[in-house]
Amino acid sequence: MTQRQRYAVLGTGALGGLYGGMLARAGHEVHFLLHSDYDHVRQQGLKIESRWGDFELPDVHAHASTSEMPPCDVTIVALKTTQNHLLESLLSAPTSGGGRVLVLQNGLGIESASANVVGPDRVLTGCCFLCSNKVGPGHIRHLDHGRIVFGCLDRDVDDIAQQTHDELAAAGIEVKLSGDMASVRWRKLLWNIPFNGLSVILDASSKELIEDPATLSLARELIDEVAAAAITLGHDIDESMKEQTIQSTITMVPYDSSMRLDYRFGRPLEIQAIFEAPLVAAKTAGVAMPRVEVLRDQLRFLDTRNRT
Amino acid sequence: MTQRQRYAVLGTGALGGLYGGMLARAGHEVHFLLHSDYDHVRQQGLKIESRWGDFELPDVHAHASTSEMPPCDVTIVALKTTQNHLLESLLSAPTSGGGRVLVLQNGLGIESASANVVGPDRVLTGCCFLCSNKVGPGHIRHLDHGRIVFGCLDRDVDDIAQQTHDELAAAGIEVKLSGDMASVRWRKLLWNIPFNGLSVILDASSKELIEDPATLSLARELIDEVAAAAITLGHDIDESMKEQTIQSTITMVPYDSSMRLDYRFGRPLEIQAIFEAPLVAAKTAGVAMPRVEVLRDQLRFLDTRNRT
Repeated sequence: MTQRQRYAVLGTGALGGLYGGMLARAGHEVHFLLHSDYDHVRQQGLKIESRWGDFELPDVHAHASTSEMPPCDVTIVALKTTQNHLLESLLSAPTSGGGRVLVLQNGLGIESASANVVGPDRVLTGCCFLCSNKVGPGHIRHLDHGRIVFGCLDRDVDDIAQQTHDELAAAGIEVKLSGDMASVRWRKLLWNIPFNGLSVILDASSKELIEDPATLSLARELIDEVAAAAITLGHDIDESMKEQTIQSTITMVPYDSSMRLDYRFGRPLEIQAIFEAPLVAAKTAGVAMPRVEVLRDQLRFLDTRNRT
Repeated sequence: MTQRQRYAVLGTGALGGLYGGMLARAGHEVHFLLHSDYDHVRQQGLKIESRWGDFELPDVHAHASTSEMPPCDVTIVALKTTQNHLLESLLSAPTSGGGRVLVLQNGLGIESASANVVGPDRVLTGCCFLCSNKVGPGHIRHLDHGRIVFGCLDRDVDDIAQQTHDELAAAGIEVKLSGDMASVRWRKLLWNIPFNGLSVILDASSKELIEDPATLSLARELIDEVAAAAITLGHDIDESMKEQTIQSTITMVPYDSSMRLDYRFGRPLEIQAIFEAPLVAAKTAGVAMPRVEVLRDQLRFLDTRNRT
């Protein structure tokens, strides 16, 4: 039997705290990078409230820096993409034994910061369809959904991807492998572009946006625009996914998107990864996304003002 | 010599208060309709601070209702278009002698409420390129610009339009006649659509919007879209007007658009006149304005939430 993998989690927030916590609960050695919550988590551990079951981990491997982490088999990148310039330094120790990096970030082109450090062959890339918030120090509340879809970067799933999948699944995480992550990333953008964007611009929850006829109609138009670009770029998006994006938001718990929380707390917004990179990709294929451009420009204005 | 015309002003705010005040100062009999400021203005009159000179009118014809107004030669409609359903009743007395209505409202199709009462031949229609705010009861502060461009509805300028022009000019108002008000209305929309819209959506002054590169770029895109629709519809818009709209905003005093003030005070927004009617007109010509649609939908959401 293959040996259980050792994990590092960079960014112990709504996403990294949940998935890392579940892996630790399942018996994996998991090393968590923490910043503002370091003292709290070192002393009191993690508290997870999840639709998959609540649990507490009083004793976890908490680190204020990655430099004293041991080499890990899989280093999960759960930071905001706006922090990707830190990865060259952060990935150094945990990937020093030749381990993989599993990038669980939103947007396009976001793997390059990790690939530049460990090489593209050692990068696993995934999207999380997750509603989760950090509600206090070391305290994660997982509200809805939660599936990870991941695979290798620009190539087929391999044995390590499979083993990682199996371990995530055994830890109780809903997980799926994909040999076409480029398409999965665009599917995620069908949600992120309208709902992250409008939640910040209009200061509204997903529930408010989906229940108002004007923003429901606008969300549909945005989804149409993104889907058309993705299809022209050759990605595997079918018509049903557009309506599925709407329906899943209707049935979703009222949710503050991560971008809305970033805005509220004065953090930089992931405009480059979620808006600009898709716009550039669409443009290379000769596809315009004028509505997405409006959102990008509005977000840029708000982001600048929010941080000055 | 022709007898001086008697005026009524429906809506004694930033616009009606300024122009009506200047006509009264010039010796015209002017009847002002007031709502919340009625008692104040009846007792203390109007106070105008204007880039064309400050003045006070301690004694004006103030009315809480139009029913006791005498028949007037020109009734200036300076209400918000969201109040146009009131015009059937409001216009009855002041236009009972056969006088004209001068509609000074933003947007498209906004003359129909007046035309339905007095007939299209008695409607004069104008646009004001004006930065003015009501800063207290009966107290108007005229900050920048101020030109009225007006003419007859859907036909050439006639004698009464000319006389009205001459009286406005003699009162010190910058005024110009136009035989093509449809084009003038679209020229005004080049400003109103980007700057009214974004000022509400992004909670920003014209100065903030024009100084940020993202919103400056977005304003240009919106102006391009509106200009292209207007040109396809056969209106007289030339390329230089697009840049002129930007330049005049750069040199303008920092200004809260009327729509931003409406939003701030919980009043309904003029979405129908300024956004929806132009979108419908463009659509009849087969022209899409996707960016303008985004703004319309965002404003509808904000307007609904703001009033509930």
